[in-house]
Amino acid sequence: MLLKVARIITGDGETVIEDGAILMEGAIIVGIGTFEELQKKNPGEQVREYPDGTLMPGFIDMHVHIGSAANVTDLNDFTRAYLAADYAAKAFGKGVTTIRDVGSAKNLCASMVRATQNGTLKLPRIIHTDAAICFTGGHGWQGGVEADGPWQVRAAIRDAVKRGANWIKIMSSHRSDTPEYTQEELNAAVDECHRVNKKVAVHAGTQPSIQMAIDAGFDTIEHGTWLTVDQAKQMKDKGMVWVPTIVAYTFTHQRIVKAMNSSGVSIQESFVQHHAYFRDAAACYHDNFGQLYQAGVEIVTGTDVVYPGREVTPVQAEMKFFVEYGMPVIKAIEAATLTGARTLEMADRFGEIACGKQADLQIVKGNPLKEIAAIDDICEVFYAGESVYRCQE
Amino acid sequence: MLLKVARIITGDGETVIEDGAILMEGAIIVGIGTFEELQKKNPGEQVREYPDGTLMPGFIDMHVHIGSAANVTDLNDFTRAYLAADYAAKAFGKGVTTIRDVGSAKNLCASMVRATQNGTLKLPRIIHTDAAICFTGGHGWQGGVEADGPWQVRAAIRDAVKRGANWIKIMSSHRSDTPEYTQEELNAAVDECHRVNKKVAVHAGTQPSIQMAIDAGFDTIEHGTWLTVDQAKQMKDKGMVWVPTIVAYTFTHQRIVKAMNSSGVSIQESFVQHHAYFRDAAACYHDNFGQLYQAGVEIVTGTDVVYPGREVTPVQAEMKFFVEYGMPVIKAIEAATLTGARTLEMADRFGEIACGKQADLQIVKGNPLKEIAAIDDICEVFYAGESVYRCQE
Amino acid sequence: MLLKVARIITGDGETVIEDGAILMEGAIIVGIGTFEELQKKNPGEQVREYPDGTLMPGFIDMHVHIGSAANVTDLNDFTRAYLAADYAAKAFGKGVTTIRDVGSAKNLCASMVRATQNGTLKLPRIIHTDAAICFTGGHGWQGGVEADGPWQVRAAIRDAVKRGANWIKIMSSHRSDTPEYTQEELNAAVDECHRVNKKVAVHAGTQPSIQMAIDAGFDTIEHGTWLTVDQAKQMKDKGMVWVPTIVAYTFTHQRIVKAMNSSGVSIQESFVQHHAYFRDAAACYHDNFGQLYQAGVEIVTGTDVVYPGREVTPVQAEMKFFVEYGMPVIKAIEAATLTGARTLEMADRFGEIACGKQADLQIVKGNPLKEIAAIDDICEVFYAGESVYRCQE
Amino acid sequence: MLLKVARIITGDGETVIEDGAILMEGAIIVGIGTFEELQKKNPGEQVREYPDGTLMPGFIDMHVHIGSAANVTDLNDFTRAYLAADYAAKAFGKGVTTIRDVGSAKNLCASMVRATQNGTLKLPRIIHTDAAICFTGGHGWQGGVEADGPWQVRAAIRDAVKRGANWIKIMSSHRSDTPEYTQEELNAAVDECHRVNKKVAVHAGTQPSIQMAIDAGFDTIEHGTWLTVDQAKQMKDKGMVWVPTIVAYTFTHQRIVKAMNSSGVSIQESFVQHHAYFRDAAACYHDNFGQLYQAGVEIVTGTDVVYPGREVTPVQAEMKFFVEYGMPVIKAIEAATLTGARTLEMADRFGEIACGKQADLQIVKGNPLKEIAAIDDICEVFYAGESVYRCQE
Repeated sequence: MLLKVARIITGDGETVIEDGAILMEGAIIVGIGTFEELQKKNPGEQVREYPDGTLMPGFIDMHVHIGSAANVTDLNDFTRAYLAADYAAKAFGKGVTTIRDVGSAKNLCASMVRATQNGTLKLPRIIHTDAAICFTGGHGWQGGVEADGPWQVRAAIRDAVKRGANWIKIMSSHRSDTPEYTQEELNAAVDECHRVNKKVAVHAGTQPSIQMAIDAGFDTIEHGTWLTVDQAKQMKDKGMVWVPTIVAYTFTHQRIVKAMNSSGVSIQESFVQHHAYFRDAAACYHDNFGQLYQAGVEIVTGTDVVYPGREVTPVQAEMKFFVEYGMPVIKAIEAATLTGARTLEMADRFGEIACGKQADLQIVKGNPLKEIAAIDDICEVFYAGESVYRCQE
Repeated sequence: MLLKVARIITGDGETVIEDGAILMEGAIIVGIGTFEELQKKNPGEQVREYPDGTLMPGFIDMHVHIGSAANVTDLNDFTRAYLAADYAAKAFGKGVTTIRDVGSAKNLCASMVRATQNGTLKLPRIIHTDAAICFTGGHGWQGGVEADGPWQVRAAIRDAVKRGANWIKIMSSHRSDTPEYTQEELNAAVDECHRVNKKVAVHAGTQPSIQMAIDAGFDTIEHGTWLTVDQAKQMKDKGMVWVPTIVAYTFTHQRIVKAMNSSGVSIQESFVQHHAYFRDAAACYHDNFGQLYQAGVEIVTGTDVVYPGREVTPVQAEMKFFVEYGMPVIKAIEAATLTGARTLEMADRFGEIACGKQADLQIVKGNPLKEIAAIDDICEVFYAGESVYRCQE
Repeated sequence: MLLKVARIITGDGETVIEDGAILMEGAIIVGIGTFEELQKKNPGEQVREYPDGTLMPGFIDMHVHIGSAANVTDLNDFTRAYLAADYAAKAFGKGVTTIRDVGSAKNLCASMVRATQNGTLKLPRIIHTDAAICFTGGHGWQGGVEADGPWQVRAAIRDAVKRGANWIKIMSSHRSDTPEYTQEELNAAVDECHRVNKKVAVHAGTQPSIQMAIDAGFDTIEHGTWLTVDQAKQMKDKGMVWVPTIVAYTFTHQRIVKAMNSSGVSIQESFVQHHAYFRDAAACYHDNFGQLYQAGVEIVTGTDVVYPGREVTPVQAEMKFFVEYGMPVIKAIEAATLTGARTLEMADRFGEIACGKQADLQIVKGNPLKEIAAIDDICEVFYAGESVYRCQE
Repeated sequence: MLLKVARIITGDGETVIEDGAILMEGAIIVGIGTFEELQKKNPGEQVREYPDGTLMPGFIDMHVHIGSAANVTDLNDFTRAYLAADYAAKAFGKGVTTIRDVGSAKNLCASMVRATQNGTLKLPRIIHTDAAICFTGGHGWQGGVEADGPWQVRAAIRDAVKRGANWIKIMSSHRSDTPEYTQEELNAAVDECHRVNKKVAVHAGTQPSIQMAIDAGFDTIEHGTWLTVDQAKQMKDKGMVWVPTIVAYTFTHQRIVKAMNSSGVSIQESFVQHHAYFRDAAACYHDNFGQLYQAGVEIVTGTDVVYPGREVTPVQAEMKFFVEYGMPVIKAIEAATLTGARTLEMADRFGEIACGKQADLQIVKGNPLKEIAAIDDICEVFYAGESVYRCQE
């Protein structure tokens, strides 16, 4: 089948093909070029046309907690399983074809992966860390795995891998300047992961945790809210990737303000208690993101929006912050596609509109390069060549 | 409301305001000066007058075991909860508005704090360490947490913080010259606490435990019974604070003597077995306290009186020992107020009669600077601007 | 009794006695030479004659998992015990008189040994490691013992020895280049075993695990599939023995090919998933074995064939690979007999046709030195001087 | 009361008082000299006369396992308690007034001590280690405490002290040249004990365990069967004491020989299995003891006879071996009395016939210095001045 669009943005941060088209064969993209060329080469091929459509790779949300869709006290595991699957499936409607879950209930993501492999569920590709690992009482201990000392940390990592983790997630700070793990434990965590060929993400939002994380050599720093330009350069030099999750902090800040001003808006009590933190965090992203981007650190989209019953994987909102704070649209699209795939070390398989890659893609109405809002106007989403979402018109 | 007294002792170890007054607004002190000045500025303000009254900050008892109020074998946790709350509430009657609990049953203090926040209980401010941490079979293991080796000690600290501990308490000696934890474990304990921004108290009464504690860098040394002048100087240089708890040893010694001479006085068998220790300890405080004070180490009041059914938080008795053994009264009042608040790193909030500080204060009848016994003659106690105790006349 | 044969291959890799005979007294070989000599010295001794028979020591299978004979989900321990004993007993029919079990269910092998000592069972000699030790989630964790960190590894070794292990088995890789244990853990494992006079085998099939195993100084490397010539020399210099288990990988590869081409052949799903690994492994042995043998590393026969219901201890098949890939037949026989006994440090007791050794032996029809296939044509097997298998004709 | 005897051997290895007497006042010896002197000073004092009697301190058995009196499979703890008390009480009949138990069931010895303090039982003084500490599966694990790694070993020591242990016992070898604990663990054990002012005994019978024990600096080496002269000198230099327990090995050897030659003698199967070890051990003591004594190492009597239903604390038999193998009788008596008390660091309280010491003593008929057998002919035994055994005549 030929998909004919007004333009293709391939995801490499540069290439735009006007009047473009792609040819899909099963799950794979086998042709790309102008519609004219492709039709000439493939006469008689069925054509699907999207007037003023822009074709892009499916988005990658690098920071998700699927299990949080069901983070309600009295739920049992069956209900939790249903809600998480529903949450993940809805991501297709956001143009998202791959998610990286960085901490849900033990075994949840591995079970979802098995269910997609068996055909029980139809969901975006899930890369996951199983439950996050924290020190006793550390950030996220309620749904995480507590481990203290370098050998317990190594054993916890081995145990997560045993349960099917593709990555590992280490927690190292919360909403204060107090670091959690010692440098010795962080170093052990990174050494163990890299030894067994797993990549490892770290929750490090504040100082000195960010510097400790850089020194330890994690693969991605999650949040890194107070990241400095000097540290961004260190990350660039070490090939570390930043997952800022601006949307999580900024939306939470906005919602707190709304809740404090209006009795009709509900919000978690712990957010209100930390409202100054969220306010400062949002301001910090606003003030610093541009310079950090200029410093050259690789940046990817992660949303970390984890409220039950709220919008899933709002990658578009994160991208709009990127653009508002100084990143060109075409780079924001790369951040949401090819850079994510490269970070996952899976760029040979997806994340770009290119021959031989899996047909994980979306068509939006309008030209995002002119008007970023176009990314919200999704016409259709394909995952592995199959239509998984189509706009109701 | 204006409180009008014969004099104010502000708690800073120097200042006395004759014919003074303070103005309270809600929980906060908003004016201080002579009554004349204040009344001029605040005409029409309601006045409460204490003839020959001395106004001072509420006292801070830096060494309390609230749980010991209920240290009776066959009690269940509900009874324990009621007795501890009763004990804490009675502290107001001793002019005490802040206590630091350095080891009670797991979760007890955190539960009391929550109950005061919910308004269920009205108690002095409670700063606490949750249960104390000791080595297997170490001093206080019956109600403490046993941990061996540096990583178990770190995990135990993390677990106490998780349960709500504001400080950490480490046990390192008992009534002999045998140290308990190794230096390696003590160093790990201090490192872990300071890393996560918690201060840490150590029970170190004898040698070499005192020196080991100084080397490790604890924030407060509890008891330090055989502290030397040289060690007091080391503590001063390192900013460590001494909590001598003279009253605990001296009263126990006196009670043992009484019990040994009279069949009508009951006492714990273990105290009688160690009567020589208590006798020597009392003598040691008597002989050395003056020099140690001269050496410049910071000293605060802690009472450690932990007999069920006995007088609560006898800070006045501790202060009288300070004075008897060589400390000026005005400095003893500072030790019981501002120095404690500074040690808790909360001096911006209370511990002094000053504008902007919380109105935690007491009025006694007479002038303690002339006659120390006046501190026993409490007229009224305010906590956060609210009258919490009034002498029955 | 005199056993009269066409030739004796003593197992030392060199000696062949034509028209030979041996004299057995109880369990022991007490005479060896030509039949003529022996009969002269022992007139009247009963003679058993094997026309065109070749007498050799019983074979040693250095890599067996007896417990795997019963590796079926719903079995209980009683059934497991019966199946394992049946599997072990059948080894006699393959000329095998000694097996080294390198990982079965906890206590299984020790129980079989006790049963043979009590006379409950009649089985080949069993040398065993009890359950194998792996890191959490490591290769073989399902039936193994998980231990993380050097002291847990040492404790696990001590526990295996406590349960009766003669050797220890450490798992250090699976079907990928990812190593499992850290070098520190491997070093601790070897140190602990050698300290307590146990030898230690390591599952190390890939790089860098093979090099890590050599550096740690294990006694035998199991599989060592991607062993290089340089590493083989290192092993030689360190006195380490290689247990290649060619048959396990090559037969599995062949069976996978068959199963993929024919619906009638069943095979474990995990083997099919790793079919490329087995294909490459088989090719690697094929291509490299000759050079590795030339490098001088000691090589022994281990079969590792662990499919329930399949042929037991196919030492002959392993030997044929040795010969096909470049080892002289007489050396292959040594590899299956005396080299194994030496590796077990039991060569003073068995593994060779020599006076004073236990009469563990077999007679095959034909001359293996001319036609290797003769080793399959077993006439009779003796264990400790007793006939334990006789060909049905 | 005056005890009048033919001679007093004071226990210091030198002094003999002919026609001596002692004066006891309550539990204490208050006079010692010739009967003539003492009677002159204490006219009218009651006299008890032992014609041809030799008065000596009560013996100290430094190596006992009281719990082994009840080491029978189907016993419950109540029966165990009764048998152990009976066993200990019988020690008085052997002139033994102090035992050091170096490994019985957890809490058994501490319970016996409490029972003697309460007056429930009347037993010799019991110094004990609570259960012995071994590595997983190490010598004595069945009734011991297993601990692996330096911190687990330290925690196990702390736990034994918590249960009341006066000493600590570490197991480090069995009946082979295989050492058990690593040097690192042994060093940690000694450091922990000495840190907390406990002395520590080690079971080290063979090489290299003996040297490892010397290097670690244990206080007493138990058995030390293959101790060399050079090692004995090292022990002397370090102030370490040797507890050879010759009687345990020699009697066991003799009994094994008897059992192997006669069907009527029962013996533990494990002893028969190790008969060569016992034979060689007995020969080793026979051949080397004299030289080792000459080397100057301190030696004390320990019997380690641990068969249910057999003779208790046969200190006399051990002493006779000392004498037979080269030690003067008067030194053997010192070894069984004052040297033991010094090793226990309790020589200020007992172990010698001297003023101010506790009246733990025995009177035997005849002169041991002329005929060692006299030590078996016990007339009366006093413990703390009270007659606890009297020969039936």
